[in-house]
Amino acid sequence: MSSELEQRAINTIRLLAVDTVGKANSGHPGAPMGMAPAAHALWTQMKLNPKDPNWITRDRFVLSNGHAVALLYTLLHLFGYNYSIEDLKQFRQLDSKTPGHPEAESEGIEVTTGPLGQGVSNAVGLAIAEAQLRNTYNKPGFDLIDNYTYCFFGDGCMMEGISSEACSLAGHLGLGKLIAFYDSNSISIDGNIEIEFTEDVGKRLESYGWEVLEVSDADTNVKAISDAIAAAKKSTDKPTCIKLTTTIGYGSLNEATASVHGSPLKPEDKRQLKEKWGFNPDQDFHVDQEVYDYYSKIAEAGAKAEEEWNALFEKYQKEFPELGAELARRLKGELPQGWEKALPTYTPADKAVASRKLSEIALGEIANVLPELVGGSADLTPSNLTRWKDATDFQSEKTGLGNQGGRYIRYGVREHGMGAIMNGLAAYGANIKSYGGTFLNFVSYGAPALRLAALSQIPVIWVATHDSIGLGEDGPTHQPIETLAHFRAIPNVMVWRPADGNETSAAYLKAIESKTTPSVLALTRQGLPQLEGSSVEKASKGGYTIVEAKDAKLIIVATGSEVITSIEAAKLLEAQGVPTSVVSLPDQFTFDSQSDEYKKSVLPDGVPIISVEVLATAGWSKYSHVQFGLDRFGASAPAGELFKKFEFTPEGIAKRGKLTVDFYAGKELLSPLNKPFFPIH
Amino acid sequence: MSSELEQRAINTIRLLAVDTVGKANSGHPGAPMGMAPAAHALWTQMKLNPKDPNWITRDRFVLSNGHAVALLYTLLHLFGYNYSIEDLKQFRQLDSKTPGHPEAESEGIEVTTGPLGQGVSNAVGLAIAEAQLRNTYNKPGFDLIDNYTYCFFGDGCMMEGISSEACSLAGHLGLGKLIAFYDSNSISIDGNIEIEFTEDVGKRLESYGWEVLEVSDADTNVKAISDAIAAAKKSTDKPTCIKLTTTIGYGSLNEATASVHGSPLKPEDKRQLKEKWGFNPDQDFHVDQEVYDYYSKIAEAGAKAEEEWNALFEKYQKEFPELGAELARRLKGELPQGWEKALPTYTPADKAVASRKLSEIALGEIANVLPELVGGSADLTPSNLTRWKDATDFQSEKTGLGNQGGRYIRYGVREHGMGAIMNGLAAYGANIKSYGGTFLNFVSYGAPALRLAALSQIPVIWVATHDSIGLGEDGPTHQPIETLAHFRAIPNVMVWRPADGNETSAAYLKAIESKTTPSVLALTRQGLPQLEGSSVEKASKGGYTIVEAKDAKLIIVATGSEVITSIEAAKLLEAQGVPTSVVSLPDQFTFDSQSDEYKKSVLPDGVPIISVEVLATAGWSKYSHVQFGLDRFGASAPAGELFKKFEFTPEGIAKRGKLTVDFYAGKELLSPLNKPFFPIH
Repeated sequence: MSSELEQRAINTIRLLAVDTVGKANSGHPGAPMGMAPAAHALWTQMKLNPKDPNWITRDRFVLSNGHAVALLYTLLHLFGYNYSIEDLKQFRQLDSKTPGHPEAESEGIEVTTGPLGQGVSNAVGLAIAEAQLRNTYNKPGFDLIDNYTYCFFGDGCMMEGISSEACSLAGHLGLGKLIAFYDSNSISIDGNIEIEFTEDVGKRLESYGWEVLEVSDADTNVKAISDAIAAAKKSTDKPTCIKLTTTIGYGSLNEATASVHGSPLKPEDKRQLKEKWGFNPDQDFHVDQEVYDYYSKIAEAGAKAEEEWNALFEKYQKEFPELGAELARRLKGELPQGWEKALPTYTPADKAVASRKLSEIALGEIANVLPELVGGSADLTPSNLTRWKDATDFQSEKTGLGNQGGRYIRYGVREHGMGAIMNGLAAYGANIKSYGGTFLNFVSYGAPALRLAALSQIPVIWVATHDSIGLGEDGPTHQPIETLAHFRAIPNVMVWRPADGNETSAAYLKAIESKTTPSVLALTRQGLPQLEGSSVEKASKGGYTIVEAKDAKLIIVATGSEVITSIEAAKLLEAQGVPTSVVSLPDQFTFDSQSDEYKKSVLPDGVPIISVEVLATAGWSKYSHVQFGLDRFGASAPAGELFKKFEFTPEGIAKRGKLTVDFYAGKELLSPLNKPFFPIH
Repeated sequence: MSSELEQRAINTIRLLAVDTVGKANSGHPGAPMGMAPAAHALWTQMKLNPKDPNWITRDRFVLSNGHAVALLYTLLHLFGYNYSIEDLKQFRQLDSKTPGHPEAESEGIEVTTGPLGQGVSNAVGLAIAEAQLRNTYNKPGFDLIDNYTYCFFGDGCMMEGISSEACSLAGHLGLGKLIAFYDSNSISIDGNIEIEFTEDVGKRLESYGWEVLEVSDADTNVKAISDAIAAAKKSTDKPTCIKLTTTIGYGSLNEATASVHGSPLKPEDKRQLKEKWGFNPDQDFHVDQEVYDYYSKIAEAGAKAEEEWNALFEKYQKEFPELGAELARRLKGELPQGWEKALPTYTPADKAVASRKLSEIALGEIANVLPELVGGSADLTPSNLTRWKDATDFQSEKTGLGNQGGRYIRYGVREHGMGAIMNGLAAYGANIKSYGGTFLNFVSYGAPALRLAALSQIPVIWVATHDSIGLGEDGPTHQPIETLAHFRAIPNVMVWRPADGNETSAAYLKAIESKTTPSVLALTRQGLPQLEGSSVEKASKGGYTIVEAKDAKLIIVATGSEVITSIEAAKLLEAQGVPTSVVSLPDQFTFDSQSDEYKKSVLPDGVPIISVEVLATAGWSKYSHVQFGLDRFGASAPAGELFKKFEFTPEGIAKRGKLTVDFYAGKELLSPLNKPFFPIH
């Protein structure tokens, strides 16, 4: 490519981004203008096939500074993805293909970014996934899985703690094929970063075990950027950061100031840019045919590479029929037939165990039949019980602690990073089912990543133990109260709180089967008996009647550890002449998806319904008339004493059940499922 | 102190912690045993007065690895705070003074810790507070404010991203009087940290601008620790970290393993420890009188120092009557008389403005009358509008960007760190009112710190702008949905969503007056008209009838930007023959605290009530029979189009109001305030 054409192409990227933001009259032109040379240098050497954006071994590109999305849409357009100039013109408009931040459901976009620090952490997950699959499936002569993970990030991403967590882990794990570009433009929304961010980012990344390269003239020196990429690829046991000194809004009259960060350029500014760079100032969204032609060569090379890859994979499937079939199945996004038979089932004769332990048993069984299961824990492995027997840790081989084919990740005390890395793992494809453990209360540290999983429809699984005051002595700093109300209020999240072994298996069944919905599994520290009347099938509906009283005068709806207590309470009420049914409702999201008829059979008209859950009551009115819950913080004491103190005992529930029956006596009562209308879903 | 007595004292600390955990049969003995020498070296040179644990210029001590609380209780006992041996024996028992993690309401405990990374970040806030007050009130010869902030932290704290945020800022700000001790014991719950945490912590802290000192034999070399403390004090423009290589569970048969981290020592292990160290193996909780005597000297010196300080402060008040009176007032925790008159009020003649702008106006007014107001923003200052005119940035003087008497903190893109630093600022005392701004959706990044503010009753203020889909084009990654439901479900949080200028002033009034409850102020990006019928006084009740219809057949309860839309809807309904009242309910927490009579007057029996808020509906059934909300993610488009798309328009609300009226026609209807019983509060 001539350097003249190269410069023209780079300025085309800049101006398309400027025009895109300008047309929307909203968005962020500055970073695209500064990073255009790096984008050009990177994308012209990437393995990508716009005709098949899901080719498993494509290079991954993550725009962690997601507000610079006009750059990404521009690249997708120029390289031949299904983004037209018209799509660019619809930037940030209702129902367009080009929303204000990258959204993973769109073609060519790997992960949803915008909330700062998430993308670079997703990239760590994508790189782990590549390494794990490469070390699992590749054979001599069959480099089936072999791609780089590239990421752009800015100062904002580096200020966020989540990036610290993920980058520290990436260094520890020695992810040599992760290459990140630090857009060091020294400008944030508040102005020059000298006011708030003066750390030495390179030194910090080195302290994590990264290699750091620098290009000090990245506005203009494309060759230096390309050379740095080549050098980064040689670093095979360390992630690399290429620090690019850039000028935000390069070329603009306001370049190098905060004003080009998040506002469209003024007309006269756009004009002078186009004139300066030899573009027609009266024409917007212009691309020379030579520029299209050049970039289309990259796409063609990618398409050819995929063809060769397809042939290689066919050969592989003949030579390694078992592994080949397995990988082929995974690429189709299918689970192994009959995998669910591995899930344990229980009868009341089985002994009482904590649901964290039931989870461990389930994981142990399914890990054997699901090679796509990749799990870990934020350092609480012996408490979360998330590591199955004989699991291999995902570790750099030279540590002697595991290898990069391992499927158990030691996340360290890094919940937020873990959440984003789990998202990245699942976003890689190949049906990866990623889970991560911590205490339920500390899922909150990672909740912004859970939210993004929900928004971008990534079915990760949070194994969240120590799910209530039932954890006892650690006290209120560790006892979740608002946590389930919070997660249930996030659209598109399953929040399972199983009551026994069968319900725990049901939770795993639905969580693993899910293709678009993440799950949180809230599990006890304390023992739970195996219930009469539970089954995997029934619990898989999200809610079901576990104790059916004839002519019930009251229904208790409960979850998790409160189901057995409610069953005991129902017996007390029965003895008092109040026939009481008990509904176990381990997951509201799944229950909501059942037929109206079924739901109405569980929560019928005419009977008062009381919900019982030893956490915040918010949200329970959807399924009950009255709520018994804990709208205060817990306390530090042995668990049994706490349940007594707060009256989450058979007696305490029965007392409230009776009050409920008396309160509604003689009143016409509709099921809470009846509503004149429903919220917007 | 003889080295023999010193050793005896240190072993006494170790054994008291071991016995405390042993008696509870629950807790963490390992870190106390490893850190006892550092605790001894530190506390014997600290400025503390057990007789007045709230002396303003005491040295602060934060145990960021809060699980090691048995160490802290032991120290508090030995140094003469109001913790008896009996209290130690009640460790982790119901209603004891010694819960499982440090809780700030207990004597001598500065901040609530346990959730990792929070404490060290609180310490940054405590150190900022000290510097800010020192630079505000001290005069030559009057070193009124002059203390160090000390902090213990472990590997877990350093793995958490929050510590990265806070420590980076501490380095930037040059907090020379912050001295942290890194308990580098190489053990986490999962085992040796080689499996998950191999970064160079010292180098990382240096990259933030810290000074790092090391003591490689911190199990035994008390002198080296003392020397390091002395050296750290000489570093006046950098925070210092003293890295202590220690042995977790020092002396135990299982020392240096994960098994001593979180489980009591076995009886035979305790026995050998006591024998080895010359204690009676049959005696628990033993303290030699010489040890008590020695530590009591520190307390005596502290009491004397406070006496001298009191005399100095009296002299100061004479010499600097204005500043003296101001500081005296602040030390009493009182606000200036009549300060609330500074809050702006509005009439419908005033123009429509966004509530983020109304917040800016309010802050500008109260900053002048409240020297205790210390604010900032997580880099979004021009969007959050949190910086009042003429504010001085809190910056190291040598930067030329401000000084350490400044009251505006450039937090950078560090929401979680900001939250914990705000908590630390307020925990310092002197009535500091700390606030911090970000987008409402990114308060979620810092929610674990908000939760700790609620738990430990710290009245910080989150200024949370861009509070709904009303932010428009940035799209669903930035649009809060579950956020208010989440915060309202946390016990002890005010969640204000004001509808206009008077309500914004009411929110500030209550937030600033609060002594025990943190606030989140959810504010719009888009303009809001000044409403007929609003007032600071009425809004200060948390909820009130803003439109009273005669013989109302429907009540609409709304917040924020939906109040005006609901008022318009009420007009449409009125025209359809449905007289409709409108209730503005800007804060549920405050409304809940009103008398039953008042609440019932706002939400009476017999009238159907519909809530309207363009966010998740969870929690609204407490105040309404039907909920109109957004239980899905938003979208990227101009705000007006989004409100139309989701029908949050006068017509959309009126339609649902009519459905509600029809649905309940002829049915007996109780106010949702009626319940047979209430959740545990």
